[in-house]
Amino acid sequence: MPINPNAEIEITAFAWVPEFAQGVVRDLRARWALEEAGLDYRVRLLAQQRPLEYLKEHPFDQVPCFNDGTVQIFESGAIIQYIGEKSEVLLPRDPQGKYRAIQWTYAALNSVEPAVQHRALLDAFYADQEWATLRKPSADEFARLKLRRVSDRLADNDWLEGDRFTIGDLMMVTVLRLAVRGDLLSDTPNLAAYVKRGEARPAFGRALEDQLAAFREHEPQGVAA
Amino acid sequence: MPINPNAEIEITAFAWVPEFAQGVVRDLRARWALEEAGLDYRVRLLAQQRPLEYLKEHPFDQVPCFNDGTVQIFESGAIIQYIGEKSEVLLPRDPQGKYRAIQWTYAALNSVEPAVQHRALLDAFYADQEWATLRKPSADEFARLKLRRVSDRLADNDWLEGDRFTIGDLMMVTVLRLAVRGDLLSDTPNLAAYVKRGEARPAFGRALEDQLAAFREHEPQGVAA
Repeated sequence: MPINPNAEIEITAFAWVPEFAQGVVRDLRARWALEEAGLDYRVRLLAQQRPLEYLKEHPFDQVPCFNDGTVQIFESGAIIQYIGEKSEVLLPRDPQGKYRAIQWTYAALNSVEPAVQHRALLDAFYADQEWATLRKPSADEFARLKLRRVSDRLADNDWLEGDRFTIGDLMMVTVLRLAVRGDLLSDTPNLAAYVKRGEARPAFGRALEDQLAAFREHEPQGVAA
Repeated sequence: MPINPNAEIEITAFAWVPEFAQGVVRDLRARWALEEAGLDYRVRLLAQQRPLEYLKEHPFDQVPCFNDGTVQIFESGAIIQYIGEKSEVLLPRDPQGKYRAIQWTYAALNSVEPAVQHRALLDAFYADQEWATLRKPSADEFARLKLRRVSDRLADNDWLEGDRFTIGDLMMVTVLRLAVRGDLLSDTPNLAAYVKRGEARPAFGRALEDQLAAFREHEPQGVAA
């Protein structure tokens, strides 16, 4: 269990978020990568209302930030890639294997997530707005097209590049979990199974439990049912 | 001038695209990085209607793909990072400098481009749709918020990490060029100047000219005014 208050590696996360965001906040990606790599880390928890100085660490005011005393960075894609460079479990060492994994990390964040997130937010944030109702059919179609492309490429493989799990799968699974919430994987059962395969990894389970444990501990008075 | 029909490095690009896409197709990113690095490359031009087998190279049916005989990848972010690893001009060698550059590459593609592109497409593709008209004010506000975050971080520096241009700037400038087209930089004059600074680099000029030269050569009959 890599959470260790004396660890050199520090990540930032939220002390608490509303229920719809629990289990999908992006520090999960860093936690999962660190668990896979077996690297100890500590967590600096932030209130929802971040202090203004936090913008110096993260210009978009998000989580996670990462700091191991050598490198201080933000953006979950860069963070899991850096962790991958420390652990062959996550990132092959041969150039082709390495850059295929990196290619899928970018693909998850730029070719898939924007379409899936746009569709998911129409229900989560904009359900009462007329434009969202009008937009939904075309947004749904566009997200499902991107998902079919991933599904076709995955085919009946366990992971995107075959037998071996990489940072590309780690990132893609976290993106596809947003699609599960939006009920967008009904046409692509192999992607639904792929997400379950990722979630069944012990490292994922520990990462998720640790994110949720902080939320339970810091739940504001009066929010619990 | 790195275009060389006998080069080992091959990228894919479109032979021709409609005018609104000219100068912003994503092979520009690969061309620009290759020009900065001084690496020769050849271009395999594709018709707008790609053959079905192209999906084996690029599962999202886009350009560019990259192949140097060692590594065959898609996703412009992964490609410019791989080129960066071959050239210190684009990617510092110390871990902090390297990962700050990579962090900005991810930030451009995941924290900025989705908001800017969503806003820009409302005018470019959906101008006749009611949902787009209703959505425009909130999409505009969200895109401008992301741009202000970048503007605040850039402040009066030449490049995102100070004096030194990296792949992070290369990617951010190509993303901000979409914002220029959507007239989204009116609040952030330092970003407008930053885009001009990027476009003034000789390597950018050669990359853009080579993309446009192919379009002129392959312009379909009857399209010219």
